[in-house]
Amino acid sequence: MPANTEQLEGRQSVLAALQARQRRFEVILVSHQAHEEKVAEVLELAAKMRVPVRRVDGRELNEMAHAASHGGVIAVCSGKPLLRAVDLPDILRNAPIPLLLLLEGIDDARNLGFTLRTAEAMGAAAVLVKKHLWDFDATEVARPASGAYERLPLVQIEEVAELRPLQRDGFVLVGCLASGKRTIYDCDFTRPSIVAIGGEKRGLSGAIREICDEFVRIPTIGGASSLALSHAAAIILGEALRQRDGKRSGLRNED
Amino acid sequence: MPANTEQLEGRQSVLAALQARQRRFEVILVSHQAHEEKVAEVLELAAKMRVPVRRVDGRELNEMAHAASHGGVIAVCSGKPLLRAVDLPDILRNAPIPLLLLLEGIDDARNLGFTLRTAEAMGAAAVLVKKHLWDFDATEVARPASGAYERLPLVQIEEVAELRPLQRDGFVLVGCLASGKRTIYDCDFTRPSIVAIGGEKRGLSGAIREICDEFVRIPTIGGASSLALSHAAAIILGEALRQRDGKRSGLRNED
Repeated sequence: MPANTEQLEGRQSVLAALQARQRRFEVILVSHQAHEEKVAEVLELAAKMRVPVRRVDGRELNEMAHAASHGGVIAVCSGKPLLRAVDLPDILRNAPIPLLLLLEGIDDARNLGFTLRTAEAMGAAAVLVKKHLWDFDATEVARPASGAYERLPLVQIEEVAELRPLQRDGFVLVGCLASGKRTIYDCDFTRPSIVAIGGEKRGLSGAIREICDEFVRIPTIGGASSLALSHAAAIILGEALRQRDGKRSGLRNED
Repeated sequence: MPANTEQLEGRQSVLAALQARQRRFEVILVSHQAHEEKVAEVLELAAKMRVPVRRVDGRELNEMAHAASHGGVIAVCSGKPLLRAVDLPDILRNAPIPLLLLLEGIDDARNLGFTLRTAEAMGAAAVLVKKHLWDFDATEVARPASGAYERLPLVQIEEVAELRPLQRDGFVLVGCLASGKRTIYDCDFTRPSIVAIGGEKRGLSGAIREICDEFVRIPTIGGASSLALSHAAAIILGEALRQRDGKRSGLRNED
């Protein structure tokens, strides 16, 4: 496969990619054994976008697939456009009070995928990753992300200095640390915010800690293990959305 | 391996199992290549509990291991004791206002493991699973659970009728549904509660819905995919702990 070609597996990933209109599709392979009503939407949109569809035997897809859960649909298409910090103003143009998630030290494609899915559902405008995105198998990220990999901007950060312009524009950079004095419930996430979460092994790097404006912790029960990164992200972003929803609907968060 | 023997992989799982004192240990295998300071606690506790330790070559462990992340420690021991609904009064004896998590339709060992880890950190007293626990590879559950698999009671439920005695004892059974009218923020989790979450494919079964006392939904952004089960659990249990912490510290949750 050429370097810039990716393979998307599963009806939801392929459908989301077609809808996002950011990739060039070479072909969509659909199993003869797939349920027709389940693939109807893919076939319809592909026809509309003049993307060739080839009906193949399910075994051919099983051999091509990275994982077992392709559900009879695989697309061969150009890679997701690579986004950098300079693209952020453009990405955030329509987000009134943007919420960004910054991940450091994430090294598992599946965890990244689940985190993208949660971040989208909780209203994050983009996910920033301080790691080379080509370290990840795109198929492995896309599958658990259930479409969010296509829809949610994923921005590669090379240096922490790239976050400075955002801070100058009024973003508060909130680092999540087990030793944070304040809890996530005492932090005001209704401001434009970047929530930084570190990997399970080393946590946030010194470079990120140095430029954080505030530190928060997620209260947990004594004696328990620390949370996994994607679940820590779920709880913080859930709290951010709770606060933002409260603000939007005129409710106040008193705690 | 005899049916009732399990293999625990990784320093944290083995340490947690030794501390929980619920299993009979045949042997603990420790790699010659393991960092001594990292395995010191395991070796010390094993000596105290008179569990034989065998130092082996790392390659031997690699061959035995289900996964790559054993970190140089594998234990061969008896299975985790199987718990049933009748054991719950005993399990809950020391939990003043118990919070239980009931999972239905979970079919991925890794997701179950992450959910156990989150549930323990958020203060759940036990996790109830409406599926045969022998359907899961214990090693695959234990690894992402990071010790919680050993410490947190995991109870197998055969029939929804087994939940009735809990409801009669004052537990409220709260079902999580996308169509729930109230949000999790409008639900009072400071009562003794069973939070029921269904699998990603089918959601909660009719049998569980029929006996739920209340239904709640997690607010999400329009157009996003639904949350994965373990991340939905993280957000609900996080909210439950927020409410409970608020109560404990005298704060009130006004929203």
